[in-house]
Amino acid sequence: MSFSFDVIKKDETTQARLGKIMTPHGAVDTPAFMPVGTQGTVKALRPDEIRSCGAQIILSNTYHLYLRPGHETIRKMGGLHTFMNWPGPILTDSGGFQVFSLGALRKILPEGVMFRSHIDGSKHLLTPGKAVEIQQALGSDIMMCLDDCTPYPATREETQNSMALTRKWAKMCLEAKTGPDQALFGIVQGGTYLDLRKQAVEEIVGLGFDGYALGGVSVGEPKDIMYAIAREIAPLLPVEKPRYLMGVGTPEDIVHGVSCGIDLFDCVIPTRCARHGLLFTNSENIVIKNARWREDNEPLDVTCDCYTCKNFSRGYLRHLYVAGEILAMILNTIHNIRYYMRLMENIRTCLCDGTFGAFRNNFLKNTESS
Amino acid sequence: MSFSFDVIKKDETTQARLGKIMTPHGAVDTPAFMPVGTQGTVKALRPDEIRSCGAQIILSNTYHLYLRPGHETIRKMGGLHTFMNWPGPILTDSGGFQVFSLGALRKILPEGVMFRSHIDGSKHLLTPGKAVEIQQALGSDIMMCLDDCTPYPATREETQNSMALTRKWAKMCLEAKTGPDQALFGIVQGGTYLDLRKQAVEEIVGLGFDGYALGGVSVGEPKDIMYAIAREIAPLLPVEKPRYLMGVGTPEDIVHGVSCGIDLFDCVIPTRCARHGLLFTNSENIVIKNARWREDNEPLDVTCDCYTCKNFSRGYLRHLYVAGEILAMILNTIHNIRYYMRLMENIRTCLCDGTFGAFRNNFLKNTESS
Repeated sequence: MSFSFDVIKKDETTQARLGKIMTPHGAVDTPAFMPVGTQGTVKALRPDEIRSCGAQIILSNTYHLYLRPGHETIRKMGGLHTFMNWPGPILTDSGGFQVFSLGALRKILPEGVMFRSHIDGSKHLLTPGKAVEIQQALGSDIMMCLDDCTPYPATREETQNSMALTRKWAKMCLEAKTGPDQALFGIVQGGTYLDLRKQAVEEIVGLGFDGYALGGVSVGEPKDIMYAIAREIAPLLPVEKPRYLMGVGTPEDIVHGVSCGIDLFDCVIPTRCARHGLLFTNSENIVIKNARWREDNEPLDVTCDCYTCKNFSRGYLRHLYVAGEILAMILNTIHNIRYYMRLMENIRTCLCDGTFGAFRNNFLKNTESS
Repeated sequence: MSFSFDVIKKDETTQARLGKIMTPHGAVDTPAFMPVGTQGTVKALRPDEIRSCGAQIILSNTYHLYLRPGHETIRKMGGLHTFMNWPGPILTDSGGFQVFSLGALRKILPEGVMFRSHIDGSKHLLTPGKAVEIQQALGSDIMMCLDDCTPYPATREETQNSMALTRKWAKMCLEAKTGPDQALFGIVQGGTYLDLRKQAVEEIVGLGFDGYALGGVSVGEPKDIMYAIAREIAPLLPVEKPRYLMGVGTPEDIVHGVSCGIDLFDCVIPTRCARHGLLFTNSENIVIKNARWREDNEPLDVTCDCYTCKNFSRGYLRHLYVAGEILAMILNTIHNIRYYMRLMENIRTCLCDGTFGAFRNNFLKNTESS
């Protein structure tokens, strides 16, 4: 089975769509959220737990796996799916975003990005061809183009230069790709300038990819700007290709994004917040270390069907967290990932039923008032 | 179901016995190893994973739970079994060993031990009555007497004084115990002096407990002294009561102990070594961080049926460990606990078949030569 995407149903009151991505490693019902497995593991979860939480696809980070254990090691070990024992679809990023985040440790050149490893200081050049080569060694189902992530804020000229580099690199990624099994997504930059974003859509879509991402969002810009980009730009992307809002976001960001016509999301929020004791529920966000929960015998969320909520009280979870126990991170991560997966399941159910508009308004009203 | 113990079969060539302990929370086939769940969690494992590894009983530490979250909190939350969602038997220690380990932070008085919390420096007095009260609040199936753990080395006089205090406190623990549901074990001290150990057996057995432990072992004394104590003293304990060698030990210590007639063991070795990347297998002990395992596609132990060995390669486990991932601690702990449980299952099978003597000789020959 090679890569394909079908829109099953279009929402009548928003831009949202219900869809399905097919990959060599199985199907992904969209809109979908991808838990982040940076180093070939979704932190604190066994792969069967990821699946039990309802995740169909995960994201893994090319930059980290390239440096450690090395993409050639993973290739020899049978590819990333076999290495980490995750049988489902995997999307890999290009490594670009992590490299740009290195700040003084990296330099952008016309041919790629020169950077020093955060692990041992060794020097590396990440080119578009290299980014594709690494992702092909990893064997992910969806590869991302190396792009130049426009920072926030950026002047119009800086943004145009960044777009030009992103376009050039996108073409080089397309040329570097060999074989039909792995899909390749293009990335639309353009900063906060909607006219430049529109130009970027034309340039990147003109090259022809299996899907399209909005990049350079969730990089520090105000929420209303991010929402405006998703609202104005997502509908300009080809209807028949999946749309991915990179690095987003909070539950309300996701509901907004879906209503703008986004199909894929990823973010470290559910896993990172879990490890820091911030837990999402349908009624409130719980800071589990608070003394308020010390002798609370209720589950985190009585409406939740996760292993954590089915088996443990807030009081026990507080104890584990305060005592610094590993099990705190495990149980908290299971819950937060399941919360995100239930959110996506609810969204898809509402899209199927034609009730997404009402769900969206109700969800955003509740989160605004909380 | 209250507490009981039956010897099912006596080995013909050693002092070993096959037995079964019944508790209000289920049965324990002996000889048994108890994984350590210090703070109300066996570190890095979900309770269903503990069970999947084959564990029937776990140990938890009174000192830690008394300080955090507090035994009254656990009582209000329904007791330790409910709090941590472990439905099987639990043995709690008295808190004494941890308190003695505080060194300068504690002072032994005739009525108990005055100590300062390692968490916040607060001052506490642990008396025999208090140790029983806490364990009753926790609701463990087997409680341990507060004893004075004789250090190594200790003079004959120091050892005699320690024994006298242990005897006095044992009597006070018996008197403090209320209700028939929780068993109470006495502890035999006596240091490295076999004649004093024999005297301690008479004194403690004379008081009448549900089981007996050899304490003050694995506190720094040479292995041959520990083996001599187990060999000479265990057979003097009542045949019809379970015998517990506290804080022991390595796989070979356990095989030795079983052959001396010991029924119960506990130790942090499998869990702590797992977190530090030392993994037990039937052929060798693996230091998983070694570069040797980088591209090794075999499981840790092809003969092992644990989740880790069934699903992951040494190469992946090395990557997780080197990358500092939580999943390394989870998968390593599952494997080491399962290794210990398989060892105990093999021991019991051999005791049932009448082949334990041969198993013992073969096991100790292999470990000595490795």
